[in-house]
Amino acid sequence: MVGTAILGTTGYTGQETLDRVLAHPQLDVVALGSDSLAGLPAAALDVRLNGDLPPFITNQEALEAGAELVFLCLPHEEAAAVEPPSGATVVDLSGGHRLSAELYPAWYGWEHPRPGELEGWCYALPELWPPDSALVASPGCYATAALLALGPLAHAVDRAGVVVDAKSGVSGAGRGLAASSHAGFVLENVSAYAIGSHRHTPEIAAALGFPVCFVPHVVPVRRGLLVTCYARAIDDTLRERLEEAYGDSQVVRLLSAGVAPELGRVQGCDAAEIALYEDRATGTAIVICALDNLGKGAAGQAVQNANLALGFEETAGLRLAGVLV
Amino acid sequence: MVGTAILGTTGYTGQETLDRVLAHPQLDVVALGSDSLAGLPAAALDVRLNGDLPPFITNQEALEAGAELVFLCLPHEEAAAVEPPSGATVVDLSGGHRLSAELYPAWYGWEHPRPGELEGWCYALPELWPPDSALVASPGCYATAALLALGPLAHAVDRAGVVVDAKSGVSGAGRGLAASSHAGFVLENVSAYAIGSHRHTPEIAAALGFPVCFVPHVVPVRRGLLVTCYARAIDDTLRERLEEAYGDSQVVRLLSAGVAPELGRVQGCDAAEIALYEDRATGTAIVICALDNLGKGAAGQAVQNANLALGFEETAGLRLAGVLV
Amino acid sequence: MVGTAILGTTGYTGQETLDRVLAHPQLDVVALGSDSLAGLPAAALDVRLNGDLPPFITNQEALEAGAELVFLCLPHEEAAAVEPPSGATVVDLSGGHRLSAELYPAWYGWEHPRPGELEGWCYALPELWPPDSALVASPGCYATAALLALGPLAHAVDRAGVVVDAKSGVSGAGRGLAASSHAGFVLENVSAYAIGSHRHTPEIAAALGFPVCFVPHVVPVRRGLLVTCYARAIDDTLRERLEEAYGDSQVVRLLSAGVAPELGRVQGCDAAEIALYEDRATGTAIVICALDNLGKGAAGQAVQNANLALGFEETAGLRLAGVLV
Amino acid sequence: MVGTAILGTTGYTGQETLDRVLAHPQLDVVALGSDSLAGLPAAALDVRLNGDLPPFITNQEALEAGAELVFLCLPHEEAAAVEPPSGATVVDLSGGHRLSAELYPAWYGWEHPRPGELEGWCYALPELWPPDSALVASPGCYATAALLALGPLAHAVDRAGVVVDAKSGVSGAGRGLAASSHAGFVLENVSAYAIGSHRHTPEIAAALGFPVCFVPHVVPVRRGLLVTCYARAIDDTLRERLEEAYGDSQVVRLLSAGVAPELGRVQGCDAAEIALYEDRATGTAIVICALDNLGKGAAGQAVQNANLALGFEETAGLRLAGVLV
Repeated sequence: MVGTAILGTTGYTGQETLDRVLAHPQLDVVALGSDSLAGLPAAALDVRLNGDLPPFITNQEALEAGAELVFLCLPHEEAAAVEPPSGATVVDLSGGHRLSAELYPAWYGWEHPRPGELEGWCYALPELWPPDSALVASPGCYATAALLALGPLAHAVDRAGVVVDAKSGVSGAGRGLAASSHAGFVLENVSAYAIGSHRHTPEIAAALGFPVCFVPHVVPVRRGLLVTCYARAIDDTLRERLEEAYGDSQVVRLLSAGVAPELGRVQGCDAAEIALYEDRATGTAIVICALDNLGKGAAGQAVQNANLALGFEETAGLRLAGVLV
Repeated sequence: MVGTAILGTTGYTGQETLDRVLAHPQLDVVALGSDSLAGLPAAALDVRLNGDLPPFITNQEALEAGAELVFLCLPHEEAAAVEPPSGATVVDLSGGHRLSAELYPAWYGWEHPRPGELEGWCYALPELWPPDSALVASPGCYATAALLALGPLAHAVDRAGVVVDAKSGVSGAGRGLAASSHAGFVLENVSAYAIGSHRHTPEIAAALGFPVCFVPHVVPVRRGLLVTCYARAIDDTLRERLEEAYGDSQVVRLLSAGVAPELGRVQGCDAAEIALYEDRATGTAIVICALDNLGKGAAGQAVQNANLALGFEETAGLRLAGVLV
Repeated sequence: MVGTAILGTTGYTGQETLDRVLAHPQLDVVALGSDSLAGLPAAALDVRLNGDLPPFITNQEALEAGAELVFLCLPHEEAAAVEPPSGATVVDLSGGHRLSAELYPAWYGWEHPRPGELEGWCYALPELWPPDSALVASPGCYATAALLALGPLAHAVDRAGVVVDAKSGVSGAGRGLAASSHAGFVLENVSAYAIGSHRHTPEIAAALGFPVCFVPHVVPVRRGLLVTCYARAIDDTLRERLEEAYGDSQVVRLLSAGVAPELGRVQGCDAAEIALYEDRATGTAIVICALDNLGKGAAGQAVQNANLALGFEETAGLRLAGVLV
Repeated sequence: MVGTAILGTTGYTGQETLDRVLAHPQLDVVALGSDSLAGLPAAALDVRLNGDLPPFITNQEALEAGAELVFLCLPHEEAAAVEPPSGATVVDLSGGHRLSAELYPAWYGWEHPRPGELEGWCYALPELWPPDSALVASPGCYATAALLALGPLAHAVDRAGVVVDAKSGVSGAGRGLAASSHAGFVLENVSAYAIGSHRHTPEIAAALGFPVCFVPHVVPVRRGLLVTCYARAIDDTLRERLEEAYGDSQVVRLLSAGVAPELGRVQGCDAAEIALYEDRATGTAIVICALDNLGKGAAGQAVQNANLALGFEETAGLRLAGVLV
């Protein structure tokens, strides 16, 4: 069993990561970090957690607890400042290690605290770019969806004019209190935010090799997101490229022509759905990807990355089975 | 008072049209058509309707009731077959008179039953193309939003590669029973439909003068929609053009730079909101329009068109006042 | 025109009160109080508010602005401490003047700051107990619904064992940020709160003359509430009593036997719906009342009370018309 | 492996039962019955189902397919007419075998087609009345919640005046199309239905030994329900009785004093939560139970019953693990 620590356990991504770790046959929780709940039992986070788990300790204590595997579920800037324990596999679910240092001031508003260490981290999206180092930056939820949809097509579309329009449930904004997460604002509303300036934009561009126009929207859904990507094909290889990328995947389900992805079908799990369409009026290629922002877009992918980094079965601990209504 | 008949009163758009007519100082209900409720009192539709209204009669009877103003809130093909009463102002809320005849087989699946009469109808969106005939085809909900956003910009953007991504509440699909309108499907779901082949596509193209790539999505909202339009500007006149179009409007509210439209703020009313943004990564112009599919996207606009056709105050009967939370 | 001041304009009930005042033919806004927005224009609260309104001033300034009519939309304890301007009609939407002084420590957690002044305030629910003083304590949202349902029946039911089970939208908890108002908590959830100890309990008991068992629940609805009341009838006069109470009301709609109240039908307006049923298995009387917590349960009723106190048409300014889907 | 047939696979409870059977280490799907999809592959129901499953056959064919375990996920009257295969364990999720024959005309509207066979069926709620025959009538969703809450307290409360107020997600009404399941009706609405006359009422009464007043409400939630039960205690043994009933349960979680059940915490799984409160104003005992109507209220409990009937581990195949946000 690999001793595992989670830092920032009490946020949405932390709790979801714990959920997968508990289901994982080769991982064992050795430390649950939370600066707000330090000293309290695990059940203080959720009554479903019981006495078999260690009590919360501070995030710094959790970092130093000797775990072989560490998940960083911290705010971006806190994660960026973490010094990885020697020899440990570290998977960062935040944006703290996804960009090159010079992009942080413009897109995150702060100087990266450890710019010289960034090259030791790999940006890993298992289906396209599996991890090749023990320090793994796991992609953002929107970036994951956009890259699953567009990554295999990067050489088959006109790189100018690619649009990514995203619709996300409210959990994407985290458990923190904000007017934009108040149910009185979210219910019966659709709103765009960070219009043309969201932090996942440079992440997508770096991975694809070209910039896209990205606009996220919040819809009254608890969890899950769907991105609709628009691009002009330059050849007729799109379906073939997607089939090659995902034909054998247990995680990404490429839908047959004419079947539309549904957020509801991937909610609460770590799978993703992708479908390809052609617009009748303009011939534009439309690629839609649905996934759960807390699953394949966060905790599920983090555990998937950990599995690959540690040589375990890729989907161990993931929520993939079942056909819930 | 102008005697008014509503055909298809019991659908969503019919009931909403009745709501505006009841609030209108110059309109008087003389006939409520409904083939399913014919013979029953108005309260059979909604307990809020009382004995001052005439009982339901069939749609054909309502058409022949001598009304000076007739609203067609019928299924597309039924509306297309209606022979307008001589001398009456007729506003069609369906798609029965919006396209040229040759487009109906491909986009609606049927031959237009009165192709020779179509040229007598005007396609009227009050802010851009006010009615110039007594037979008025009122635009579809998505088309209204897309055209309000893009209409004033048609000469300021690259006509290739315009994308319109729409998010709509479920009432857009009407009151009829369908698996896709079942709450068990709609709640906690986002799904695209009629991908690249929706009927409002040719309507938008005809009005704009060029085709766009249009994809609608259903989100768990009862009423209201928001469209996000993507286009490349060919000059820097976009904001100026929008200000010119809507600066004096009581119906369309052009938001200041940096203020995002919210579906919630136009829900249940006949106003629309528009905002213009520029994407930081690619320079793409982003124009967002929010409106209520049953208000400005249907009944509100139909009454607004009737007001213009009859020479009344443009906003009489409309739901515009108030600042509900 | 009666000069009107609103204190606490920026909360939900303040904004809704402003909505009714703007629609009122005899009221004129002279002061908009908000300690957080003081100095800013009205549009800072909502882009739909325009330059015809005065800018925000502090609540104390608004209190001293010389208004003849003052609405207190403040937190309970702040409202309780307000010294009414001499000669003004004051309607308090908070719980600051609803109970006798000795109940405040136990149910609100603080001593009433002006206990000797409480007798100058009347507790006014227009249909049952219209205001008889210029200082009006307007009932709470749950209390309004429970009292509309049970008030006329107080002498026709067994006073032991009356149960009031309430289901409310999230706006009942106000605009403030709280974990229990986070959309990630509210969506796809139903939860009871303040179980058996809610502050509206003593208010209901005082008005009815006997205590009831009251439990409120939050459901994923933006606004509106529905209470289901259970009582054993001691005679067969229940329907007759309700008909007597509401037969002539423009605000409370008593439904025919077999028609169920729907929250959706009163959402966004100031009406209420009531229905009476008998349980087949036990004979228990079931009285259901639906209303909008921000309408009849707050702003609508406050303006209705003001109308009665000032001798205006009872429903002036209220949102009653219309049959929105 | 025990060969298993599901009749009525394509409804909500059928699909959920299949979900548990697929996760069960000792069950093997031998027949999937569906009269509407007969002849089609399993993926016709849901793209997540793959080629390892047999294609759909008719329900009658599935009944005769030689399965050792049969789940009836059929409409009530169809299930009532089924002749159990000799030697098979049959679990009926419908109401077809829950009541004594004479109650069917009054509560279901039809004569039971096989009244003489009803005594061969046991009504089984595992925590209180485990199955004692191979023909198992699994309780209704509301009945399960009401009985989990009140069953252990039947001798500790005043049997007159017990009230059960339920709030349910829309999936309780099944996948069939109905105006009351249309998202345009469900969203932003709360409505009571079958007021005082719901079919689960006699089921609850028969199991408890006395009638209760039961009113169900639909709220805008996809799945899950919460019942709030009101009763007057006749002694102070209530908590002790609940602890005795559920202290060792892996399925029913009795919450500590002051912790409120949340529908969200049991959604998508087969657990239930129960909490006990005392009303401050009247001393009434309040017992709240939350469960997923499709999980513990249907498929989960059916599989739990099958496990007990077949001598398997009680929770095999159930969805109990995990702490999803």
